[in-house]
Amino acid sequence: MREVAVLGIGQTKIDEHWDKSLRLLAGEAILAAMQDAGVERVDSIYVGNMMSGSANFQQHLGAYIADWVGSRFSESLHIEAACSSGAASFRAALMAVASGEVEVAVAAGVEKMTDSPAGEITAQLATAADADWEVDQGISFVALNALVMRRYMHEYGWQKDDFASFSINAHANGAKNPYARFQEPISLKAYQRAPMVADPINVYDASPMGDGAAAAVLVPAEALQRSNAKPIIRVLGSGAATDTIDVQSRRKPVWLTAAELSVKQAYKQAGIGPEDIDLFELHDAFTIMATLSLEAAGFAQPGQGPRLALDGEITPSGRIPIATRGGLKARGHPVGATGMYQIVEVVQQLRQEAGETQVENARIGMAQNIGGSGSNIITHILGI
Amino acid sequence: MREVAVLGIGQTKIDEHWDKSLRLLAGEAILAAMQDAGVERVDSIYVGNMMSGSANFQQHLGAYIADWVGSRFSESLHIEAACSSGAASFRAALMAVASGEVEVAVAAGVEKMTDSPAGEITAQLATAADADWEVDQGISFVALNALVMRRYMHEYGWQKDDFASFSINAHANGAKNPYARFQEPISLKAYQRAPMVADPINVYDASPMGDGAAAAVLVPAEALQRSNAKPIIRVLGSGAATDTIDVQSRRKPVWLTAAELSVKQAYKQAGIGPEDIDLFELHDAFTIMATLSLEAAGFAQPGQGPRLALDGEITPSGRIPIATRGGLKARGHPVGATGMYQIVEVVQQLRQEAGETQVENARIGMAQNIGGSGSNIITHILGI
Repeated sequence: MREVAVLGIGQTKIDEHWDKSLRLLAGEAILAAMQDAGVERVDSIYVGNMMSGSANFQQHLGAYIADWVGSRFSESLHIEAACSSGAASFRAALMAVASGEVEVAVAAGVEKMTDSPAGEITAQLATAADADWEVDQGISFVALNALVMRRYMHEYGWQKDDFASFSINAHANGAKNPYARFQEPISLKAYQRAPMVADPINVYDASPMGDGAAAAVLVPAEALQRSNAKPIIRVLGSGAATDTIDVQSRRKPVWLTAAELSVKQAYKQAGIGPEDIDLFELHDAFTIMATLSLEAAGFAQPGQGPRLALDGEITPSGRIPIATRGGLKARGHPVGATGMYQIVEVVQQLRQEAGETQVENARIGMAQNIGGSGSNIITHILGI
Repeated sequence: MREVAVLGIGQTKIDEHWDKSLRLLAGEAILAAMQDAGVERVDSIYVGNMMSGSANFQQHLGAYIADWVGSRFSESLHIEAACSSGAASFRAALMAVASGEVEVAVAAGVEKMTDSPAGEITAQLATAADADWEVDQGISFVALNALVMRRYMHEYGWQKDDFASFSINAHANGAKNPYARFQEPISLKAYQRAPMVADPINVYDASPMGDGAAAAVLVPAEALQRSNAKPIIRVLGSGAATDTIDVQSRRKPVWLTAAELSVKQAYKQAGIGPEDIDLFELHDAFTIMATLSLEAAGFAQPGQGPRLALDGEITPSGRIPIATRGGLKARGHPVGATGMYQIVEVVQQLRQEAGETQVENARIGMAQNIGGSGSNIITHILGI
């Protein structure tokens, strides 16, 4: 396998983009990434998306998007792994370039969620859970996470307010990211007063829907000249693992086994450990997921994730900065695009282009994307 | 890149499987392939499927299926390229093994189409076309192909009956395949009397819907012992290309540029040409597509595909046997699974396990899977 580097990145602001089609959104991000990379054509495009077939009546995003971005005749595919579709497309692009089959690949993620009524989108999001064993029983995706959070609080003795710092950090960072959906900081009081969605998850524990797209250009690292003005961002490690699609079948619902496995695989490939990670773009779709990711990645003991947040260790100047550009909570969570936003943000940090939320001397960053309720987890480590 | 071999294959009969869920169908094919290969666990599973999100209210087929086939914690993804989803998943598995990242991969395709009303499925199939520029104008998928067929007849002077031999050959072969949906031969008279779907496409020009799944196990070729009782089936070449998603934007709608590009790439990788191919499992979703594939792959001059069929050259004993197990027309076309059925059938031929439709001395076989109206085309060449 040859080493792979990220040569360019692009993203759209996450918003309610009623004036932009799926094609326009994806094109905006991909063309920005190609411009950033200085390439005019690519060999292969991998498009992460969860639900365009039902939300936008458009499948076949490979051919749909390749032609639009000026790469008619290129190979192009659509890859889906629920909310981890973005990282899955990055991993597919990575393997294609690593294998030697492809020289210039684009990994992209796009999702357009706000054209459909909210109830329909909630039903479509539930297709990431088990149709027979979960959804048919009437449970929604937020409710599944609420059960996990409630169990976690019960097992480890945390109170609801102990999760507030995750949300406060995310919104504080999102306020400084022009691409974020929400650009206002929030207070502890606001968190405490927030309306409940599915007890104990309130609106500030949950990430918002949105429309958006993000993309990266991948090339063999050996092809890059040191003379390039930007630092070379290398993919140091990649790991992917699944768990049961339904939460009830897991021995321990408050532990992300798939995260642990994928992170270990990525650490091993990179030859490093958690102590070497300068920042961690994790999948804070819900505050409980931020906690569980930190624990599975080795930054906290089981049951101790909230302590990191309470101690301020997750802020840009803390021990392990997370959600440095707002995370899913404030930057937004257009599901199939999220994994690519995480990659783009890690690259921004490693290039020292993260503005007011720049992590000082960031040299190694990790991104972790979660599909379903912890049932498909993909981790990447990038470094300069 | 290391060489990759197909170690095991599995398939279900294509039918209206109202008694089997998506999970049961996919599991049946994958477990059969794993048993055939003699492996109990796999590292990665790639699931080709087009429309389970809307037809079966189940996305996230990676995690959904990995656990079911006893590979909980394995990497697993869902890959979609409309009707070429099956070949796309095979190509993803191929690259993963070729890259050295994965040792044992499963490529699978599954589609369950008969649980929904036919009109709904027709609408869902249309998501493979351009939502803005084709579907919103009211055109269906069959109608798009009818326009291409009409134009082809006009340009090259063929009559409707000249296409009958494609259908007659497919049904004759399907009659001898226990996995085929239709197992009765048809006559020229039956073809001539068949009800019209979208003029000039009648029901015998068009492939049927169905439920089914097919799978293969891929491993590095170097890992296989010569002592294995079965011949080693090597992947000699792979190619993928897109074209405009909408037919109207193509300079020449009666030529499959993406097929030509993907076939050339596969020939080049294999170091062979059309003269070396012993059989060709092509994508006869419509008789016109069989014609265009034969031409793009170099077996006939532009406009001369029907001549091969009229001369009997496409039968199992002809120059270039196609649809040897019934093809999409008679074996059936569960869209996201079709590409994997083609691979399974090529392997059967190369193993000399194709029964009454065995192609004598078959040593090199080609499979070509088409997504949309020629907008995503993936070709594989296998050999012993």
